[in-house]
This record gives sequence, structure tokens and C-alpha cells, in this order.
Amino acid sequence: MGEIVFVGLGLNDEMGMTLRGLEEAKSADTVFIELYTSVLPAFSFEHLEELAGKKISVVSRKDLEDDCGRVVLSAGRLGKAVLIVPGDPLIATTHVALRVEAHRNGIETRIVHGASALSAIIGLSGLHNYKFGKTVTIPFKENFSETPYNVIAQNRTLGLHTLCLLDLKTDEKRFLTVKEALKMLGEIENKKKQGIVLNDTIAVGLARAGSKAPSLKAESIGELLKFDFGEPPMTLIFPGQLHFMEAEALIAFAGAPTKLRSMTT
Amino acid sequence: MGEIVFVGLGLNDEMGMTLRGLEEAKSADTVFIELYTSVLPAFSFEHLEELAGKKISVVSRKDLEDDCGRVVLSAGRLGKAVLIVPGDPLIATTHVALRVEAHRNGIETRIVHGASALSAIIGLSGLHNYKFGKTVTIPFKENFSETPYNVIAQNRTLGLHTLCLLDLKTDEKRFLTVKEALKMLGEIENKKKQGIVLNDTIAVGLARAGSKAPSLKAESIGELLKFDFGEPPMTLIFPGQLHFMEAEALIAFAGAPTKLRSMTT
Repeated sequence: MGEIVFVGLGLNDEMGMTLRGLEEAKSADTVFIELYTSVLPAFSFEHLEELAGKKISVVSRKDLEDDCGRVVLSAGRLGKAVLIVPGDPLIATTHVALRVEAHRNGIETRIVHGASALSAIIGLSGLHNYKFGKTVTIPFKENFSETPYNVIAQNRTLGLHTLCLLDLKTDEKRFLTVKEALKMLGEIENKKKQGIVLNDTIAVGLARAGSKAPSLKAESIGELLKFDFGEPPMTLIFPGQLHFMEAEALIAFAGAPTKLRSMTT
Repeated sequence: MGEIVFVGLGLNDEMGMTLRGLEEAKSADTVFIELYTSVLPAFSFEHLEELAGKKISVVSRKDLEDDCGRVVLSAGRLGKAVLIVPGDPLIATTHVALRVEAHRNGIETRIVHGASALSAIIGLSGLHNYKFGKTVTIPFKENFSETPYNVIAQNRTLGLHTLCLLDLKTDEKRFLTVKEALKMLGEIENKKKQGIVLNDTIAVGLARAGSKAPSLKAESIGELLKFDFGEPPMTLIFPGQLHFMEAEALIAFAGAPTKLRSMTT
């Protein structure tokens, strides 16, 4: 009987995989990897093949979504198939769909978790995990939407932080930047004639979470628009009410202005 | 110049560490580990020392919290100190405080992320990450609080899922169970004479996320109260509005009743 093991590759490069994940890849009959749902800035395909001691096949968006993962399902029917996925493997909804499809085909599945950008970003920010509200993705300009603004405003009203993922199209090497995201939010705010999100607000920009040199800056929107975060991928956090230890972390690691101390609860 | 590297151990046992984390431990002058902020059901201390090729010192809650991590700071002043932490290292607020303290003492810090129970639980449930509202911890009976109930009710109103972490005291080997948590929520609901949270509701119980045999069950509260989840640690999710793919995942992997299909949006 075959099986499909979803193995998280974690962050940044192939060294983000767990010891357990590597064992699974070593003992697999077939190993696949997808590299389109996230970006791994320093990834070396050759080094991963060397570590696993075998050939690894890259599966594309087309293979997994249009073709419903047929190539992975076939391998999982015949033997042990490992599918390596950036981050934690079931955070991308594509892979939940593939897992359900495997189940319908009577193929067993197992999960080997990996580090996710979600917890990495929260940890690097020093903000308390349980104070985040709903997460939102800020889209590219051609998919303009007021939803992100409304989610931030709603979380704010509840005193909660908002994690904003910035859209990316890995196949086109396109990544929304902090600057573009802030400009889009600013346009919405101007139109709404509200001042909930951007006015007199401190936001946190973060680039390359999980890499050796993440870049983190907490500042007013005006200052953030000028800040050079370097290479993508980037994220943006709009803090809600701050605990004093959260403010201290932003001052220490994100160069936040010390006036943040007087804004804590 | 010294430094402190926070290394995530990930989930379940020492094999949850990343390849990068192990490299950091191997090249460190001093390696510490804390094992009280989370539980690692299958952890072997001896195997971890063998993998790292050196002695590892266990630091207690007292060392890190009452003593402000003095022993780790001292080692980080003299050379390269690694502190291994279950899960993703900065999700526990204790370690954010230690990192701030290191910064104040002029000691550099770096982070090697690990798999967090947070993304593991969300992934295993098959629910969409961006549809979770605020996370809440359900406390032991002696710390009774209505907050968890109110958070679930608030998220529900917004159509959002609620991840409920169940309290644990690893030093006393005490873990709140799904059954105890549901009973506490039921008492609050009875008192409030509301039916928002428990009435006619499907909830998801999950035990041992990240282990080889996690246990997952989506059912009405009455059925969940009877379900045997086995060993802790456990979590509870109260879903908000369900997407059809979320319902399919709960039916496939959590044995949810198929009537869930008619409750999707």
C-alpha cells in the first residue's frame, strides 16, 4: 500500500527542512517538490537532491491544480511518495485539496510539519500571537480590493493586530512591496475619509522572515514609505493595542520610536 | 563577540529540529534547552545530545523568568550560545523578553525558526488560515474565566474560526482536556442563557498535533464529550462559516458528519 507524505521545507532554503522530513525523503520511492506557493530566497535544488540522495521532480501549479495532482497521486498509489512544500505544508489550501483527493482515492497521507512564515513573522515582530485578529492578503493593484483596509479597521476596533500578507506571483517573480501596499491602503482611506488605519499610526514592515538577514522596521506610515527593506518577500503588520513588552520588542528590534512606550496598555 | 541563537525544536521530538538548527547547535560553544513552555511527547534528551555532539543544559522556568535568563546571557556574552525551544522559538513571550534583555546587554541574537503547533493545528484541521480570528487559551478550572467564551462568540459573529489552546502545566504534567474545556464553556453558556457557542454546533477536537498519530474529531458538542482523544496535548477549534473545501477536509480527516456539506457558504 502506498502513501503520500507532505513534508514542510520551512523557510529560506533546503536547510529549513526538519531532520524528520529529510528521513522521509530519504526513504521515499518518489520525491516531488513544489516551489510556487512560497518563495525560498536561498534555495539550492542540487543541495536538496544531494541531502535526500535521490532525484526530485518539480511539480508546477498546473500539475497540482489543473491536473489535480495526478502525478503525485499515481506515485502515492504505487509506493511511498513525498511531496516537499515550502513552509508548513497544509497552510497552502492547494495541498489540503490534494490531501482530500488522496483520501478519496484510498491513499493514506501523513504530515511532517515545517516552520511557517506565519509564526516566524509573529515571532520576529515580538508581538503576542494571541492578540492577532484575522489575517489578510493585500493584492496587486489589478486585483484592487477594499477588504484589507476593512479587516485592519475591524481588528483595530477590537484592539487586535493585523498581519497583512503581501501578494506574490512566484512564477512571474512579482512581489508586492510594503510601499505599494501602504499606497493602496492610503488611497482607500482617502476615499473613505476615515483615519482609522493610517493616520498617526505606527505600522511594522518586515522583509525576508526566516532568512539570515530579515529586515524589520516599525515607524509612522510616512517614514515606512521611505524605508528601504531590500529584497522581497515582505509583510506588513498593523498593531492594535500594545502591551509594554511588545513595545519594547519593537523598539529593540524594529527601531520603533521610543514614544511607543507611552502608547501601551 | 558573543551571540544567542534561538533555535526552534519544532514538534513532537528532537527530529522536529531543522537541519539549520542542528548546524547551529553543533557549532555553538554552549547549548541550552528549555522544555517547559510546550510538551514534546516523544522527546529523547540523549538522542538530541548525540545529534548535537555535545552536552546540553536544561534551563527551567526559574532560570529564564525569575532569574531573567542570566545563565544564557552569560554564555551569550562569552561565545556562541544556542537556546533550543520547542515549536517556533519566539511564540512563547518568555523568549521575546529574553531577546530584549540580550539586546539591552549588547548581545546579538539570531532566530532559527521551527514548526509551530499553531500552523500545524490549522493545517491538520484543513481550515483556511486566513479565516481564523483571535486565538484564545482556555484555562484550568481554578483560573476560570469567561473570556474564551466571549472570544469564540465574537469570532462567530464575524464568521471566523476560533483556535482554543488548552492550558497546560508541563512541570506538573497537567493538561486541560477537550472534555473539561467543553464543560467549562457549557457552564458559561448556561449562565448567559445564550446559544451562540455550543448549541447545535460542530467543534473540532485535536490531540497531539505534530506527532505520528494525531487524533482529530469534528462533531456536535454532545458527541465530542464522549470521544476518546487519547493522550494530551489537545486543542479545540470552533469553526465559523465554512468553505466547501473546509467541510470536505473535516469530513475526510476528522470524521465530521456529511451534513456539514449543506452548511457551507
